[in-house]
Order: sequence, then C-alpha cells, then structure tokens
Amino acid sequence: MNEIRVFAPATVANVACGFDIFGFAVDQPGDEVLLRQTDQPGVRIIDIIGDDGRLPRDAARNTAGIAIQSFLKKIGRPDVGFDMVLTKHMPLGSGLGSSAASAVAGVFAANELLGRPLTTLELLPFAMEGERIACGSAHADNVGPSLLGGFVVVRSYAPLDVIKIETPASLFATIVHPDVEVNTKDARYILKNEVSLKNAITQMGNVAGLIAGLMKPDYDLIGRSMVDVIIEPVRSILIPEFDEVKRSAIANGALGCSISGSGPSMFALSRDADTAQNVGQAMQQAFLSVGITSEVYVSGINNVGPRVLA
Amino acid sequence: MNEIRVFAPATVANVACGFDIFGFAVDQPGDEVLLRQTDQPGVRIIDIIGDDGRLPRDAARNTAGIAIQSFLKKIGRPDVGFDMVLTKHMPLGSGLGSSAASAVAGVFAANELLGRPLTTLELLPFAMEGERIACGSAHADNVGPSLLGGFVVVRSYAPLDVIKIETPASLFATIVHPDVEVNTKDARYILKNEVSLKNAITQMGNVAGLIAGLMKPDYDLIGRSMVDVIIEPVRSILIPEFDEVKRSAIANGALGCSISGSGPSMFALSRDADTAQNVGQAMQQAFLSVGITSEVYVSGINNVGPRVLA
Repeated sequence: MNEIRVFAPATVANVACGFDIFGFAVDQPGDEVLLRQTDQPGVRIIDIIGDDGRLPRDAARNTAGIAIQSFLKKIGRPDVGFDMVLTKHMPLGSGLGSSAASAVAGVFAANELLGRPLTTLELLPFAMEGERIACGSAHADNVGPSLLGGFVVVRSYAPLDVIKIETPASLFATIVHPDVEVNTKDARYILKNEVSLKNAITQMGNVAGLIAGLMKPDYDLIGRSMVDVIIEPVRSILIPEFDEVKRSAIANGALGCSISGSGPSMFALSRDADTAQNVGQAMQQAFLSVGITSEVYVSGINNVGPRVLA
Repeated sequence: MNEIRVFAPATVANVACGFDIFGFAVDQPGDEVLLRQTDQPGVRIIDIIGDDGRLPRDAARNTAGIAIQSFLKKIGRPDVGFDMVLTKHMPLGSGLGSSAASAVAGVFAANELLGRPLTTLELLPFAMEGERIACGSAHADNVGPSLLGGFVVVRSYAPLDVIKIETPASLFATIVHPDVEVNTKDARYILKNEVSLKNAITQMGNVAGLIAGLMKPDYDLIGRSMVDVIIEPVRSILIPEFDEVKRSAIANGALGCSISGSGPSMFALSRDADTAQNVGQAMQQAFLSVGITSEVYVSGINNVGPRVLA
C-alpha cells in the first residue's frame, strides 16, 4: 500500500460552557486527504480542492503539511516522501475545526501508510502543530475530538491530558453555518483576560453539569448546563441574529444552543435525530429572516474519529 | 412517635477544584439532633453538647433552629413545637460543615416527626437558611451533600440545581483537623473577586476531569484533577505547614489533597481504606512536626445522608 484516502470529521469546540476544554466530533462535514508515498523526501501538496484557492499550497505553511512533517521528524523518517491532495468538504473559517480536520486526516493517513509506528493518541501533538499554524496556538479542543472521536475534554496542556467522555447514543448535533465571516484571531482578541470569580463559579457548575449529564445520561441536565456566561456574551455580538437563532433552536426542542468554536457557525444538541432536523430548519429560517443564507448539518456524535476511505 | 434522634454527616466542600460547587459527605464525624415534639409552638434549644458553650442557645440564632423554623413556616404549621438537644461531634469552625450538619439533622428530624410532608430534596432550602446564619450566605456545598449523601454538584443557585454524582465504592477520604482556627468569613474575604481567564480555563478542565474521573471511575484521573489554581494558593497561606502536609499525603499514596471547605481542615482522597489510614497518619505527623496536634477521620463516601438513630 503506497496510497490512502482518509476522512477526518469536523468538530464543535467549546460546547457552550467549556471554552478551550470541550469539543466533539460529528459525522459530517469533514475533510479528506489523499496521501501517496513517493521516493522524494518531504511533503508536497499536489492540489487542494474546495478552498477557492485560499489555502497555502506550500506544505510548510499548510496545517496538514505541518502535521505530517512534524510527525516524520518525530519518528525519525526524513527519507519518507508524500504527495498530498486535500479536499475541503467544509467552509474555511466557519468555526467547525476545518484546519484541525485537515491536520488530523493528514497525520492519520501518514501513520497508516507507514504501518502505524504510533498509536492514534500519540498523533495528537503533531495535529496540534498544524493548529499552531492555523490559529496561532497549539489548541487541542478541535484536533482532540477529530482524532479520537466522541466528546473530548482537554483537561491540561502541560502535560497534555485529553479525556474521552461517553455520550448517549441518541444525542444529535445540529450545526448551522451562516454565510458570514468571523476571523478566529479577532474572536479570541475581543475576549477579556479576567473573569469575575462569580462567573467562573457559574461556568464551573455548568462544566460539571454537562459532563455529568452526558455520562449519566440526563438530557435535561445536558440542556440546563449548556450555558456560557463568559464567552458567548462577548462573541455572540459578532454573529448577526444570534439571539433569535438560539431562541428558535430552543423553541423547537433543542437541549441547548451556542457558538461552534469561535463562530460564526452555531450548534445545537437534541435528544433525537428528528428534533435535530427540525432545529436545523428553524435556525436556518431565523438566519434567512434577515437575508443570511446558511448550510445545515445534522449528525450524531462521531465516536470513530478519522477513517480510511475505500 | 414524638421524639427522634438524627445524625447528619460532616462534609468536605470545594474538593480542590470545585470552589462553591462541589462537596461530599463522610461517615464520620457528624452532628446529632434529639428532637421532641411538644404542645408549645416554636423551637426551643434545651441543650447543646460538645460546643464548649460557644453556640447561641437562642433557636432563632442557631443554624438547626433556623432551619426547623423556616421549614415549619413553609409547610404552614405554626402550631407545632419542638424541644431540641444538639450534640456536636465535630469541632466548630473546622471546615467540615459543622453548621450544615446541624441544620440538616434538625430539619430532617422535624420532617420525620411530622410524617414526611416534604421529600428529602425539598428540605434543602431550609437547611440552606441555617447556613445563612452561620456563614452569611445560603451556600449549598455543605448542606447539599450532608442532606443527600454522596458527592454533590451545586450547578446553580437560581434556580437551585443540585446533582448527585456516583463515586467508586472503594474511594476513601482522610480528613485531618489541625488544632488551629481559621475564621470562615476571613477565609472568604481574602479571595480576589477576579480570576484570570487562563486560570479559569485550567480550573474548568480539572472540574470536568474530576467529574469524569469519579463517574468512569478512573482513580488516576481523579488524582490529576484534584488541582486548585484559584482558591488553594490564597487560602493555604492561613494553614500552617500546608505544603508539607499535602506533600506527605501524596507521598503516602493519596490521589490528591487540598483544603476542606475554608479550612483549616485538610482532606485527601485515596483508592482504598488502608491507604487513607496511612495518609492520615502521615498528615498528622507533618502537622505534629511543627507542634500542631490534630484529629484524623478516615471514612468512605457517605451515600446515605442523615439517618435516624435508634
């Protein structure tokens, strides 16, 4: 085998109350990497499909390219060469972990082609290196769930401690990506460096409640805990019609609704697929009422992570 | 039945990372209330044993008295009268939820004598009223676990949302109460009103990790998550030899160690009873090395809450 195609899932980071520590993977959308081993050392990007020419073709500046190169360096294989075709199945800068999915697909594909010198979990730091290029810092709340699947807690970065949480089988996610742009770096820049102890305590209560709700499972508790008093009040200002979209999600049966990552995508969780579909239509309609079109994705929680395509 | 004796357990609030939101109950120590129904309306304190005369004998200023009176008011029974004897089996101002245990024992006893007009959970607000007298605010992180038993999350106060978390059967707590005094109000006063977003995120990660660790269960994760970057660095200054006591607990096998409530008691969690015993001896020895005597309590997590004594 000298060629492989790998799909890695999009992810919803933060999940309302868990800024920088929570994320979960969905079945769709996601990114796809075709990787072919060659005799010429290093990583070359042959093509990127679906980015409207916006991503750098230089592997040293591409999230998947960086991830693979840092992986090859770690395992001591400077002799290995790869040609890569990256297919973006999701919008850039959407808050769905697009750069994370590409990095995960790339490094997972490379590890498979080389006969799995590392475990999946061991690939995490290399995918994070890809994130450093995309976001300016090596976050794990998108690459963690994209790589491991499921709902993931990033408990700590030093040392890196990533914990997978069981989720109820019928839990469904709705993601709505409005056709507006938010710069991730701006979305981080507008946050305050200090929070009140009172708000920190409220947020901690919701963090505990969400984990307990997922593990028990207790859908009502999940819903009550999907409250963000720290980040959402600031970042939601960047998303047109945020309050109305959220209100329509809840009114149509969603357990909770908030910003996906740093936006502008919004997500909701529901207790079954039908509700998640209805919630998606209602959210899309709310955006449309002010003239904003959007894509809707409805999916269970992806418990697999990246997968090899036939 | 016109007389009842009820024991309510001591509690460890905060549990390292969960300031104001986590607490758990232990099998010992605890407080005891003897309640006798009489023809004379209102609550009278006949005696308080074990407080060296420090607690007010006026029921309207006593945590158990307040709890019972607010309960009687709520259920519309101004005609009912109780004589009460309160036996303190634990030191006052120790950080073990002494006032909470008395309030819980009192209101639980009254509810039993009157044929359970309310459920146990419904008694929580009245026990919290007792706390308001003792601490200046109606906290639930001691009364919650003392009343419900087990490990409890206070997710929210408005509305009140208290969640019981499963804990592994072999988890053991060590509590060491050094013979020094910390004023609870001082311990709260020295806290800062603001925390850095960075520390809030770290704490949230540990909150999530501790809940996941308890529910999976995963002892190592419990230990890794028993880290408090917000409160412990400030309050530990009030406890002589804190660092050395904590170090000795960990060195002897404790999963983690921190301040119980607002101190000066310290607690540790261990994966079995023998370890918890050894940890207790080591912590006591560390205090003694600087001339401070202490009481040690070793106990499983109390999953029952208050209980009627024969």
